[in-house]
Amino acid sequence: MHPSRWGDPDRAAALPEATRGMVELVFGLDDRPAVEVGPLTHPTLDAAVLAELAAAVGSDHVHTDDDTRRLRTRGKSTPDLLRARAGDLADAPDVVVRPSSHDEVAAVLAIAVGHHLAVVPFGGGTSVTGGLVAAREGYAGVVSLDLARMKRLVVADHTSMTATLEPGLRGPEAEALLAAEGLTLGHYPQSWEYASIGGFAATRSSGQSSAGYGRFDALVVGLTVATPRGRLDLGTAPANAAGPDLRQLLLGSEGTFGVITAVTVRVRKLPVVKVYEGWRWPSFADGTAAMRTLAQSGLLPTVIRLSDESETAINLADPAAIGGDGAAGCLMITGYEGEPDAVDAKRAAVTAVLTGLGGAPVGEAAGEKWAHGRFDAPYLRDSLLDVGVLVETLETATFWSNVERLYADVKAALTDALSPSPGDPSIVLCHISHVYETGCSLYFTVAAKEAADPLAQWERAKVAASDAMIAAGATITHHHAVGTDHKPWFAKEVGPLGVSVLRAVKADLDPTGILNPGVLIP
Amino acid sequence: MHPSRWGDPDRAAALPEATRGMVELVFGLDDRPAVEVGPLTHPTLDAAVLAELAAAVGSDHVHTDDDTRRLRTRGKSTPDLLRARAGDLADAPDVVVRPSSHDEVAAVLAIAVGHHLAVVPFGGGTSVTGGLVAAREGYAGVVSLDLARMKRLVVADHTSMTATLEPGLRGPEAEALLAAEGLTLGHYPQSWEYASIGGFAATRSSGQSSAGYGRFDALVVGLTVATPRGRLDLGTAPANAAGPDLRQLLLGSEGTFGVITAVTVRVRKLPVVKVYEGWRWPSFADGTAAMRTLAQSGLLPTVIRLSDESETAINLADPAAIGGDGAAGCLMITGYEGEPDAVDAKRAAVTAVLTGLGGAPVGEAAGEKWAHGRFDAPYLRDSLLDVGVLVETLETATFWSNVERLYADVKAALTDALSPSPGDPSIVLCHISHVYETGCSLYFTVAAKEAADPLAQWERAKVAASDAMIAAGATITHHHAVGTDHKPWFAKEVGPLGVSVLRAVKADLDPTGILNPGVLIP
Repeated sequence: MHPSRWGDPDRAAALPEATRGMVELVFGLDDRPAVEVGPLTHPTLDAAVLAELAAAVGSDHVHTDDDTRRLRTRGKSTPDLLRARAGDLADAPDVVVRPSSHDEVAAVLAIAVGHHLAVVPFGGGTSVTGGLVAAREGYAGVVSLDLARMKRLVVADHTSMTATLEPGLRGPEAEALLAAEGLTLGHYPQSWEYASIGGFAATRSSGQSSAGYGRFDALVVGLTVATPRGRLDLGTAPANAAGPDLRQLLLGSEGTFGVITAVTVRVRKLPVVKVYEGWRWPSFADGTAAMRTLAQSGLLPTVIRLSDESETAINLADPAAIGGDGAAGCLMITGYEGEPDAVDAKRAAVTAVLTGLGGAPVGEAAGEKWAHGRFDAPYLRDSLLDVGVLVETLETATFWSNVERLYADVKAALTDALSPSPGDPSIVLCHISHVYETGCSLYFTVAAKEAADPLAQWERAKVAASDAMIAAGATITHHHAVGTDHKPWFAKEVGPLGVSVLRAVKADLDPTGILNPGVLIP
Repeated sequence: MHPSRWGDPDRAAALPEATRGMVELVFGLDDRPAVEVGPLTHPTLDAAVLAELAAAVGSDHVHTDDDTRRLRTRGKSTPDLLRARAGDLADAPDVVVRPSSHDEVAAVLAIAVGHHLAVVPFGGGTSVTGGLVAAREGYAGVVSLDLARMKRLVVADHTSMTATLEPGLRGPEAEALLAAEGLTLGHYPQSWEYASIGGFAATRSSGQSSAGYGRFDALVVGLTVATPRGRLDLGTAPANAAGPDLRQLLLGSEGTFGVITAVTVRVRKLPVVKVYEGWRWPSFADGTAAMRTLAQSGLLPTVIRLSDESETAINLADPAAIGGDGAAGCLMITGYEGEPDAVDAKRAAVTAVLTGLGGAPVGEAAGEKWAHGRFDAPYLRDSLLDVGVLVETLETATFWSNVERLYADVKAALTDALSPSPGDPSIVLCHISHVYETGCSLYFTVAAKEAADPLAQWERAKVAASDAMIAAGATITHHHAVGTDHKPWFAKEVGPLGVSVLRAVKADLDPTGILNPGVLIP
């Protein structure tokens, strides 16, 4: 991972010509290169503590060099990137420790308790909500607990169709191990190339194929967790009535209750066929209604997503359509994965429903284009930041009867905050990418000309959008998690008593508060 | 409800002639009538407390008469019935209080905190795990908080396909209100005629149509809960990444964390067609493998259940087959509910798979017979208790790769405990009634000649079976919940740290421990 950009440094690229033309037209171009980063300012931990850590995990796996620490600093939200691009790496950990087993994780936690070190579990480093931002104050230091050495497929149970995976496996690594067994997890969030199994579980991730495979928290049947007070092994059956489901208390705990050291997930047979295609709808409302019909008919494809009029226009790279009247309609992508017969049957059934509701098929090329570029958006964001365009995303979810209001309110909040005057153009795009019988997600992408203080500029928009979500009774996050960024609204979402319960659980499992302090718990 | 039998007193009946013949053959007949119950021995609460309760809910809704209290005493497990039949009603509450709203529930909780009264939330009174057994010691009295007046369909959202229901609605009442809206919940546990919406949520219930509609905890999208520390409103979206899913912490909390005062559930369109049919399999293993194939192909009917060889023989009322060699094979029931086209398509697809795997269709008569008698088993249990046959059920669940071992171990444990010598015949039956992609439930029914101390007799069998479940790594309960009866094994299932977390949540929401003391939390 690049320290101030997304992903593979070799894949960093200048803005494509067509996009560059569009940007010039709308915002103008403004060269904003990242500054060179100097040495990290924080000292590392004292030698005695480092020696204890080395005894726990091996001296080859305790890193204090600047390069390693820099790559474990914060996540990949636009504010994170803006800070890194400006040379601000103040949140760098003091040391990066890489355990290889549950017992080594437990040993590191014991050392951290002993010295009151903050511990930040680190998987892929792809948080976009400040989930890796260490609260330093009051702690003797900050340890980045990098799980990258815990990369085993522990067991694949072909009868139960489950697999136990270690947390450090990144998306492609997990899929490669499973593919060798003829299996797939089918979990493809946009961060898939870098994000980790442990991170998927800790943040209740949801992937682009969630309609077919389920969100990550629905895939998990078992968890092993190391806490300062010992080990939790959860998951004795697919489902049961043995009290509250403690798995669902650890899923989404973002490293604040414990460190997930193994995840047992539901797996599927490796699909033989993968086919994606496009549909055109007269309006976002029409496409949304069609998604609802499919979801409530039990007829969901593996992938289903719908761009609103603006996102459809932008994705077609049709500069004339920007800010247009929506005449181009809305693009929906449907995808089917599985055995040929099952794919054919499902596709025929979905096609009949969508055609009956007024959708127009636009062919597989549109689907292939989406599938080909499905993990590329973060690279484009970097290229846009390079030319002075602020780009960020945020997302929410609600029940179907509230979708129209939520969409309008959040879009208005973002537009008003980013375009206070006609001279400040902004683009607000939206798509639905996760649907349920009772509701769906809304995923917004915004672009605006970078102001003198882009962090403050984004903060205003984020606050306005978040306030609109909570006012509409929706969730502050469908799949990006809480981190530090969403805490104020998360507190409103679960209420004071919900916060109190989370604090009680935290106090029980992590009495000295060493685990990811400042994250999640309001 | 009858105080010492299941259900409607008018439906109590003598044993059918065929069953009576079979019982006589196997166990002999032994007249064991219930004793007449005298006046309750516990005094009621003092007048000042009763006046406070009357001020909170209205004096018409505070009951201290024997009849009302007797009907709120314990649940409907066989041990509960044995105690009641023997005249033991020592666990009767001191007062039955019937609030009509969330605020009245909150007011009763405040009074209970003030006087340190134990509060037992009461829905349908159908617990079979001691979930209604009040711990009296250390409390100034025991209040049965009967939710029977909270019976509204608060709102039906036809767009989101959700409905908000009050907790006191019994199964048929909830379905009747929903049917008037063209909707169904589709949740049909065997206790359906009496069990309540609040109870379904508090115990993570699962119904006979769970393959089609989902278990109750999967149907819940929102909860309102009254706790001694205030109100929780949970559920802002179908799914989200906003921290741990607190809904799943309250589901299964069995009244120990708070009183559920409203439940928002996913609903479906009222089915136009309901059709049930039978299949014959050469063995329980063959039928189990077929269920697994269906579940892992995404091809589940609305209802699917499979009796083992012994249960099949008993259900066919063929006395010659009891204890036989299983030559009669195993009966599977499949059921389909929904729109005619969807039912036809699903039925055709399932039929093709089952036929291909060696199943033989035995027609709709077998399915109709099951559907007709699906809620009757508890009445039969009473009739068997009347003639000195101890009958009880217990259930567990595990992953598919562990089903064969779990079945063998639990069956052996029950048989060994109930038939210590050849002169002590017992019958151990099993069926699978809930299937998932990764595993299934196992539901055991046992019958044995009642010993002089039937409570001790059953306790030995229960301990042996429960030990076998935990030793096999399975759950102590798939859908009967924990109550008081499963606590020792529940503690082993979640481990000491899991218990610690539950205690921490309990201490936070119910600091003085008034809510259902002695239940769930080890």
